[in-house]
Amino acid sequence: DYATLDHDRLARRGLAEAVLCDGKTVEHLHGIAGELAARESRTLFTRVREDQVAVLLEQLPGAAYDPVARLVAWPGEPPEPTGGLVVVVAAGTSDLPVAREAALTARHLGRETRTIADVGVAGLHRILGRLEVLREARAIVVAAGMDGALPGVVAGLVTAPVIAVPTSVGYGAAFGGLAPLLTMLNACAPGVAVVNIDNGYGAGHMAAQIAAPV
Amino acid sequence: DYATLDHDRLARRGLAEAVLCDGKTVEHLHGIAGELAARESRTLFTRVREDQVAVLLEQLPGAAYDPVARLVAWPGEPPEPTGGLVVVVAAGTSDLPVAREAALTARHLGRETRTIADVGVAGLHRILGRLEVLREARAIVVAAGMDGALPGVVAGLVTAPVIAVPTSVGYGAAFGGLAPLLTMLNACAPGVAVVNIDNGYGAGHMAAQIAAPV
Amino acid sequence: DYATLDHDRLARRGLAEAVLCDGKTVEHLHGIAGELAARESRTLFTRVREDQVAVLLEQLPGAAYDPVARLVAWPGEPPEPTGGLVVVVAAGTSDLPVAREAALTARHLGRETRTIADVGVAGLHRILGRLEVLREARAIVVAAGMDGALPGVVAGLVTAPVIAVPTSVGYGAAFGGLAPLLTMLNACAPGVAVVNIDNGYGAGHMAAQIAAPV
Amino acid sequence: DYATLDHDRLARRGLAEAVLCDGKTVEHLHGIAGELAARESRTLFTRVREDQVAVLLEQLPGAAYDPVARLVAWPGEPPEPTGGLVVVVAAGTSDLPVAREAALTARHLGRETRTIADVGVAGLHRILGRLEVLREARAIVVAAGMDGALPGVVAGLVTAPVIAVPTSVGYGAAFGGLAPLLTMLNACAPGVAVVNIDNGYGAGHMAAQIAAPV
Amino acid sequence: DYATLDHDRLARRGLAEAVLCDGKTVEHLHGIAGELAARESRTLFTRVREDQVAVLLEQLPGAAYDPVARLVAWPGEPPEPTGGLVVVVAAGTSDLPVAREAALTARHLGRETRTIADVGVAGLHRILGRLEVLREARAIVVAAGMDGALPGVVAGLVTAPVIAVPTSVGYGAAFGGLAPLLTMLNACAPGVAVVNIDNGYGAGHMAAQIAAPV
Amino acid sequence: DYATLDHDRLARRGLAEAVLCDGKTVEHLHGIAGELAARESRTLFTRVREDQVAVLLEQLPGAAYDPVARLVAWPGEPPEPTGGLVVVVAAGTSDLPVAREAALTARHLGRETRTIADVGVAGLHRILGRLEVLREARAIVVAAGMDGALPGVVAGLVTAPVIAVPTSVGYGAAFGGLAPLLTMLNACAPGVAVVNIDNGYGAGHMAAQIAAPV
Amino acid sequence: DYATLDHDRLARRGLAEAVLCDGKTVEHLHGIAGELAARESRTLFTRVREDQVAVLLEQLPGAAYDPVARLVAWPGEPPEPTGGLVVVVAAGTSDLPVAREAALTARHLGRETRTIADVGVAGLHRILGRLEVLREARAIVVAAGMDGALPGVVAGLVTAPVIAVPTSVGYGAAFGGLAPLLTMLNACAPGVAVVNIDNGYGAGHMAAQIAAPV
Amino acid sequence: DYATLDHDRLARRGLAEAVLCDGKTVEHLHGIAGELAARESRTLFTRVREDQVAVLLEQLPGAAYDPVARLVAWPGEPPEPTGGLVVVVAAGTSDLPVAREAALTARHLGRETRTIADVGVAGLHRILGRLEVLREARAIVVAAGMDGALPGVVAGLVTAPVIAVPTSVGYGAAFGGLAPLLTMLNACAPGVAVVNIDNGYGAGHMAAQIAAPV
Ligand SMILES: Nc1ncnc2c1ncn2[C@@H]1O[C@H](COP(=O)(O)O)[C@@H](O)[C@H]1O
Ligand SMILES: Nc1ncnc2c1ncn2[C@@H]1O[C@H](COP(=O)(O)O)[C@@H](O)[C@H]1O
Ligand SMILES: Nc1ncnc2c1ncn2[C@@H]1O[C@H](COP(=O)(O)O)[C@@H](O)[C@H]1O
Ligand SMILES: Nc1ncnc2c1ncn2[C@@H]1O[C@H](COP(=O)(O)O)[C@@H](O)[C@H]1O
Ligand SMILES: [Mg+2]
Ligand SMILES: [Mg+2]
Ligand SMILES: [Mg+2]
Ligand SMILES: [Mg+2]
Ligand SMILES: [Mg+2]
Ligand SMILES: [Mg+2]
Ligand SMILES: [Mg+2]
Ligand SMILES: [Mg+2]
Repeated sequence: DYATLDHDRLARRGLAEAVLCDGKTVEHLHGIAGELAARESRTLFTRVREDQVAVLLEQLPGAAYDPVARLVAWPGEPPEPTGGLVVVVAAGTSDLPVAREAALTARHLGRETRTIADVGVAGLHRILGRLEVLREARAIVVAAGMDGALPGVVAGLVTAPVIAVPTSVGYGAAFGGLAPLLTMLNACAPGVAVVNIDNGYGAGHMAAQIAAPV
Repeated sequence: DYATLDHDRLARRGLAEAVLCDGKTVEHLHGIAGELAARESRTLFTRVREDQVAVLLEQLPGAAYDPVARLVAWPGEPPEPTGGLVVVVAAGTSDLPVAREAALTARHLGRETRTIADVGVAGLHRILGRLEVLREARAIVVAAGMDGALPGVVAGLVTAPVIAVPTSVGYGAAFGGLAPLLTMLNACAPGVAVVNIDNGYGAGHMAAQIAAPV
Repeated sequence: DYATLDHDRLARRGLAEAVLCDGKTVEHLHGIAGELAARESRTLFTRVREDQVAVLLEQLPGAAYDPVARLVAWPGEPPEPTGGLVVVVAAGTSDLPVAREAALTARHLGRETRTIADVGVAGLHRILGRLEVLREARAIVVAAGMDGALPGVVAGLVTAPVIAVPTSVGYGAAFGGLAPLLTMLNACAPGVAVVNIDNGYGAGHMAAQIAAPV
Repeated sequence: DYATLDHDRLARRGLAEAVLCDGKTVEHLHGIAGELAARESRTLFTRVREDQVAVLLEQLPGAAYDPVARLVAWPGEPPEPTGGLVVVVAAGTSDLPVAREAALTARHLGRETRTIADVGVAGLHRILGRLEVLREARAIVVAAGMDGALPGVVAGLVTAPVIAVPTSVGYGAAFGGLAPLLTMLNACAPGVAVVNIDNGYGAGHMAAQIAAPV
Repeated sequence: DYATLDHDRLARRGLAEAVLCDGKTVEHLHGIAGELAARESRTLFTRVREDQVAVLLEQLPGAAYDPVARLVAWPGEPPEPTGGLVVVVAAGTSDLPVAREAALTARHLGRETRTIADVGVAGLHRILGRLEVLREARAIVVAAGMDGALPGVVAGLVTAPVIAVPTSVGYGAAFGGLAPLLTMLNACAPGVAVVNIDNGYGAGHMAAQIAAPV
Repeated sequence: DYATLDHDRLARRGLAEAVLCDGKTVEHLHGIAGELAARESRTLFTRVREDQVAVLLEQLPGAAYDPVARLVAWPGEPPEPTGGLVVVVAAGTSDLPVAREAALTARHLGRETRTIADVGVAGLHRILGRLEVLREARAIVVAAGMDGALPGVVAGLVTAPVIAVPTSVGYGAAFGGLAPLLTMLNACAPGVAVVNIDNGYGAGHMAAQIAAPV
Repeated sequence: DYATLDHDRLARRGLAEAVLCDGKTVEHLHGIAGELAARESRTLFTRVREDQVAVLLEQLPGAAYDPVARLVAWPGEPPEPTGGLVVVVAAGTSDLPVAREAALTARHLGRETRTIADVGVAGLHRILGRLEVLREARAIVVAAGMDGALPGVVAGLVTAPVIAVPTSVGYGAAFGGLAPLLTMLNACAPGVAVVNIDNGYGAGHMAAQIAAPV
Repeated sequence: DYATLDHDRLARRGLAEAVLCDGKTVEHLHGIAGELAARESRTLFTRVREDQVAVLLEQLPGAAYDPVARLVAWPGEPPEPTGGLVVVVAAGTSDLPVAREAALTARHLGRETRTIADVGVAGLHRILGRLEVLREARAIVVAAGMDGALPGVVAGLVTAPVIAVPTSVGYGAAFGGLAPLLTMLNACAPGVAVVNIDNGYGAGHMAAQIAAPV
């Protein structure tokens, strides 16, 4: 009576269910994980709080927990990769948790991924030095906080579509990610679409869908 | 000295240049169109003001003007379609100009397109009655104003990625498209990424990139 | 000298007083509860902080405390139900505390209630599978965070008026409940009216008034 | 191909379709009105622009146009009233267009209505002098701009639920209706729910649903 | 080198210096209090953090600390009252800390004060029952959170000017005091001017200036 | 039925009624002015639109119209001044319409007034050169747009309370008066209270109340 | 009595007075220009409305009017250049009016200037092709709308300080220049400081001060 | 793979790299500091968290840590000063941490600096008493919270350009620094440019660039 799991999602959408853990009680997660384990449904648990990890790992034998990305994947082993390459870019070192959430999501949904870090626009030679791998991608995720300028710059250099993830990295007039969000929505280069602030999961999911028809 | 056209874009990005006309003087557009005509570069002119149409059509023989989408395409004839299908959905009749800009953009960038109109969530049977065509799409664009709820509902029903375009349709607390923009960024269903308010061009471009590798 | 209780409210409005506890000192609550106990006035205490529970239960023998809804009801036993049915819907599991505050409020104000959980628009079949109970309602409360799309979808399916409660569930561009608040104010389906973010009390009160003339 | 009318709404919801005219072309309205006339569906046309009036009146013989409320009702004659009384209150003279839209909507959906004007809180004796009629209501609509204080004051005096409509009346920090919207959402008296800024239609619809089960 | 005290203020403005303590280190406050003690300047210390109280009381013998108002006054004894009466009104019990800061400030600046609590607009009879004392005032301070409606209602009933203080009491769309701030700026009754959210000090200062020429 | 004039205001508040004309129809103003003329009530008509002037002057013989302040006063002759001096300061030349509305309001409510213009903080010697007249005031109104810094500077120099009026003068990040509004609410010098953006009427009314007990 | 010109500014600040014309009446400008002409003070008139041009040119013989920058300079001939070079960059063709206002301001305050246009980040080779001239600058002004990414990119490539001017070019979530304003404030590369939206005058003034000590 | 340090920055920009520490893990900082130590690159570490200090001081022998400014400089000894003087002004005592970050940054980038504290506009004589040192500066940094009025006042008195830093000092409608940010962007005096809220580093960097060509 507290959860109506979307067991039908795999059939309807081709990609498995995910559970957003942050606002749930440990008791509710216990029940949800148990029900999914019983049905053997491949599932991602995102934004896992520290006090929730134990119950997930216990209910779901073989699950894998990534503390940087705050992600529990079950089963822990991702499927054999299919489709095109997903490249994930973190503008700064501090954007890595969001980038990692995106990369792991895409990987567990069946794509091969590559990650590039700390190549923000303050030193352009850094991103220009990675054009080769960027041009191999079928879909690119770019996570950036503060000015959020990198996704537009990347989109202007490649053929692949760019999923931009604003992060809450920054302070003051970054307003918790509002500044990079607006920058990305106004990117001068076409080929940029935006997901919610810090939503690495959503970016990785979208990139996985783009990089291979499901 | 007033424009540095990106003639290299087709080579670099695989898709042609576009010119955002709204803020430009007629004199500047005259020069820009002339230069593009001389180079025979396939180009879209977006957000064309009424006073700018004549100079574009005159400088670019064979161009096509769509007054609803406020778009001039040159050449007027789109290329032979390749890649997957792009389905464009307008939540309400008033969202049609934005939807049309998206559809024409995707069409002129080389995709086949289908458009569905006035199937907002106030009467769910309308969108549920179109599942067949939605499920044929390799990429879906959904334009919606006011509550902006439709893209999330569509994403929950299909396998294709959804590009959501908030529109400025509505009044009061729609705040010029801010309300549907936030709704779309917070869509509960994964597989939704968002472009700027009223940016049919950006949505169509992104959908074209998704529906066929370039 | 710190409180002027509205003892006249039952006479004037037909429904009892409520005390918003969050910002009050334990000392003030001690006095307020004592005064109400002396007058034997049926009262709800909302948004009760953990450090306030003891003094309330001590001053008001027979009171009932619900930790999920953060509500103390006195007397603990609700009145015999009259009027129509109030159905309370929680879009996600995380919206349950707000939904429960609404349901308990309506129940203690004299209505019969039913609660449905985790039926958000990402998997439409879930809400479509509950149409029967929704159509029995004289008033419906829908609590939803993130995209806040569910109230408009529900309103489009039923004859009863819908009271929408945005919740602060979500992150990033949910902006603490602002996103679902705006969505609900812009609901495309008529028959939706909105209360404050996380205001389960207000929603339950309104639903109780609608479901039976007082 | 530009409109998918919700002919099923009367069956599903018990109340007829409405058409929001503001963002539609005259050509589209011509077609929509024609289709509705052919089906003899009772319909309200709201936020009608002046250039749209003629085509509506021509396509819908017997329709009634109210220029203050910007409403076309078809048929022009409202149904015989059923259910309880709807009282509509305008805080100031300038709020009358929104109040009138609410009153006409409720009337055409089948309720009896009464309207009270210019009884804002700057002179409390004005609203206190109307308690008798307010206490006859089964549902009350209060339209107010600027400080938006009146709905909370009214709710504190009566048993009926109050639908509050913020209006864009005011200037400066009224921010186009944002100020009264926030006031109403934070009303200290329970029994207030809020619709969109200037949304007289939504308020009247909700009041009609409350004042009689449909 | 960290503070340039405004010792000239009493001469220039007729009212003594005040020190906003919140953002200062204990070391800095130690120095500031010492310097003021040496000069025997009457001073108010506002928004005092708990860890700052000891150093103030130690440096300023005879100072008085009020933990509710978070105020240290030195000397602790206020001057003999002169000028007209200042009435301070708290809309709810939770607004008392701000109201008390206002009352103590006015008192220490030399005015007689009276305080009324919990007379918000949800039960109008409460404020209407205090008209007598309100009409004795030469200046009125009204502190209110949530809907912030009380100052406008009071102003409509009296001849004295009203200083409105929005408080951060409330939740959700109260947005930390933004909602009552906007309400007060848009008060329909003239005779209301507004100070910063939770700024009891500023309100009391202004009221003291109004109630007696300095 | 469209207006409930507050004829009691003079008795209750000591100052006459005012009518905010902007949002009213010419027909309604005709009726309102007629009713006031019949009762011989001293009244101010504020924010008068150009198309409303004629009907006011016709209905109210002897009324005076000031096109800069957009004010009609009736009777046109202000009363003999009583109480203290009101000084009105305009930070820039462009703030003069608002300053004039304040000065005329205070004058028609019975105070003597003096106006100083274009003495903003960019050239401090200008305001420092007017200290003499500022120090004669019992109440000061300061109207300023853009940075809104002048009221705080003035308050720091005088004993009289300052009513600050933010104006919509400026562009870009002035956001229609929001920037000076926030500046004024955060004024470092106590003795500043704020009215709505461009609300010269409210500022003048408040100053008149301060400068003489009513 | 409507203007207090800052004739002392040249002495105090080393740079001449400027008059912001937008909000002033033609009559006031007539007087101001006359007074300045009489004193032979070098002055810039910014944001000149079309109806103001004639009176300025008539009162100030030899003045120069630039319709793109909306600037009148008097005398029309700029002084002999001194100090370092100011380079002004316009991200897009539509940013040219703001860039031109900056360039003319710096030129009339005594600096040599160079302007580069349409070198936004969507095609990086464009700005990278201008490094030579950028590296000659002692101060750089960059005007950009939409994503506002260019100033940070430029700052990362040069030694000169960058003054960033957000422009109101763009639509939707550009929010009238708010988006590029936030981007620029959050620029990842240090060496960027920001002026008001569309404030070419302020940017040019600042650049002139930087490029030569005054 | 978590950091791509900009070792080229000194060559390209003439000023050394800086590392923003706040969002980085201690592990990442360990690696970054080690790499920089190995290359002997002069570096500033800004916004250092307390748990990060030890690893920095250990990896970078001879580094200096300033706990007020939260800055680690390596090497700890700043270079011999060159170029003009940088004067740093703190409006209040609470703005000192930001002012100190600016002063230390400019000093470590090679400029001589002077700091003035607590000279806000509430007591103008304080800043007017420091004109001599202000007029010696080649660049001025002004840090201010709350009303943010001081930078504009300073700019109006001197010839040097002013870099304004809004601080998050204040409460309520200061909105975390938004209020002073807007004030500074709207400064009436030209010669003011603004950096991010609390960004002392950026202000000091910009001032260092202005005060000496690099
Ligand atoms: N309607 C549009 N919305 C957003 N971006 C656009 C639009 N039209 C063109 N663009 C992009 O904006 C860039 C700048 O346009 P322009 O100002 O013409 O140089 C173009 O290169 C396009 O990629
Ligand atoms: N959780 C709540 N949210 C909104 N309003 C409430 C809540 N609880 C109580 N109230 C109302 O707020 C009024 C003021 O509460 P109090 O501060 O206790 O006097 C009460 O009379 C209730 O009608
Ligand atoms: N320019 C104004 N700004 C703010 N309030 C006003 C203004 N003019 C009149 N008022 C007040 O607004 C109230 C409502 O105005 P009305 O809509 O005319 O009934 C009047 O009674 C005045 O006290
Ligand atoms: N406190 C700060 N505020 C703003 N930008 C900074 C700050 N500290 C360093 N930076 C800049 O931010 C860039 C990115 O920092 P990082 O994340 O360390 O790569 C650095 O290269 C600096 O130029
Ligand atoms: Mg779920
Ligand atoms: Mg271009
Ligand atoms: Mg109470
Ligand atoms: Mg429809
Ligand atoms: Mg001080
Ligand atoms: Mg009135
Ligand atoms: Mg001037
Ligand atoms: Mg770095």
